[in-house]
Amino acid sequence: MASSTTSRRAVVLLSGGLDSATVLAMARAEGLACHALTIQYGQRHEQELVSARRVASELGAAEHRNLKLDLSVFGGSTLFSGVVPKDESPETRAEIPSTYVPARNTVFLSIALGWAEVLDAEAIYLGVNAIDYSGYPDCRPEYLEAFQRVADLATRRGVEGRSIEIRAPLLHLDKAEIIQNGLDLGVDYGWTTSCYDPDHRGRACGHCDACQLREAGFEKVGAADPARTPQSETEGNERP
Amino acid sequence: MASSTTSRRAVVLLSGGLDSATVLAMARAEGLACHALTIQYGQRHEQELVSARRVASELGAAEHRNLKLDLSVFGGSTLFSGVVPKDESPETRAEIPSTYVPARNTVFLSIALGWAEVLDAEAIYLGVNAIDYSGYPDCRPEYLEAFQRVADLATRRGVEGRSIEIRAPLLHLDKAEIIQNGLDLGVDYGWTTSCYDPDHRGRACGHCDACQLREAGFEKVGAADPARTPQSETEGNERP
Repeated sequence: MASSTTSRRAVVLLSGGLDSATVLAMARAEGLACHALTIQYGQRHEQELVSARRVASELGAAEHRNLKLDLSVFGGSTLFSGVVPKDESPETRAEIPSTYVPARNTVFLSIALGWAEVLDAEAIYLGVNAIDYSGYPDCRPEYLEAFQRVADLATRRGVEGRSIEIRAPLLHLDKAEIIQNGLDLGVDYGWTTSCYDPDHRGRACGHCDACQLREAGFEKVGAADPARTPQSETEGNERP
Repeated sequence: MASSTTSRRAVVLLSGGLDSATVLAMARAEGLACHALTIQYGQRHEQELVSARRVASELGAAEHRNLKLDLSVFGGSTLFSGVVPKDESPETRAEIPSTYVPARNTVFLSIALGWAEVLDAEAIYLGVNAIDYSGYPDCRPEYLEAFQRVADLATRRGVEGRSIEIRAPLLHLDKAEIIQNGLDLGVDYGWTTSCYDPDHRGRACGHCDACQLREAGFEKVGAADPARTPQSETEGNERP
């Protein structure tokens, strides 16, 4: 897809994972010029950024920016420690998992809000969902409603009565529905990385929360995950 | 003041200016261990950071961290451009001034929120006020109430019913009252920098919005501003 020349703009938070790639495809399908934003917040691997760059390019983002903000200086998450829990069952898992990064979505949305205002963008898209969501408190609908009110009160656009809408089109979809939506919009999930703990070649571990949710989603759709096939491991997964 | 060993903790957003120095003194007077946070968001001078370090040290902060987040990549404020307006009267000034940085307080509060959760802090202190506030939308009481709701919904503490309180003790004070409060608590405003556009030696311009508000405040209190006296320019303003 080529970059759009429309003046309707959106900021899209792009992690390089399955969910945010689907969201970018959805925002593009709405005819929006998409300004993709990846925030490197101190997670221990670079694979997400590699994937985000590819997704932005393949799906025709108007631009892609990468911003560094090292939240790991505060600690508080196993994503920073290098000891990500594996093969936890829903019964043994803590109510809020140890991979939770304190206030991450609030920080991401705030930065996106600032950029959206500068761009005069009508919306911010993010890939949270409330069903297969790992139990993070900042993925709930009531959280997003509260942030919408902050966005309306905090910004020049809000004061002028032109809301910057917080859009989370995956909020009420399960992982299989997300994948089906993306496949229908031409997303190749071989571009994406979901794993919290990939190896040095960027290959998914298959055992963390994110890998387990992703695998279950592809199984339910009845599709193979192109990121788990041998050709992706040798960088041979060219676009059709 | 010596560092406190109390377990009651707060994160204090510390810019190096007059308001946040006063807020830190107030939080210390409440008996809180204060974890001061300065965010370098891309403003063009380093004087604020020099002042923030001194204020944190003089007022006995438990620690002081400096985080870099370059919001200037998005533009949108004259604070990034180097052309700060001078000598504007309230009549000629735009409703929201050009020094407004889109979503700045939301970004700052979000980052503070993440740290507060890691520290298990009971509060975040910030120095906004709704009276002599330059017209920024994210300094209004309704904005802070909206952010409190986000904080309650976004965090592990909030889910557990233990609010991280957003405290803005200057909200309903005018600049003179703020200065009087700080003087009563032993703040030496010679440690602080308010100017948007100081010279290469860190001296205030005397003509930007921030300088004008500060000057009017000291006049009303009937005190001299130690940051504008000759000895401060030669680093001779030792504490009494």
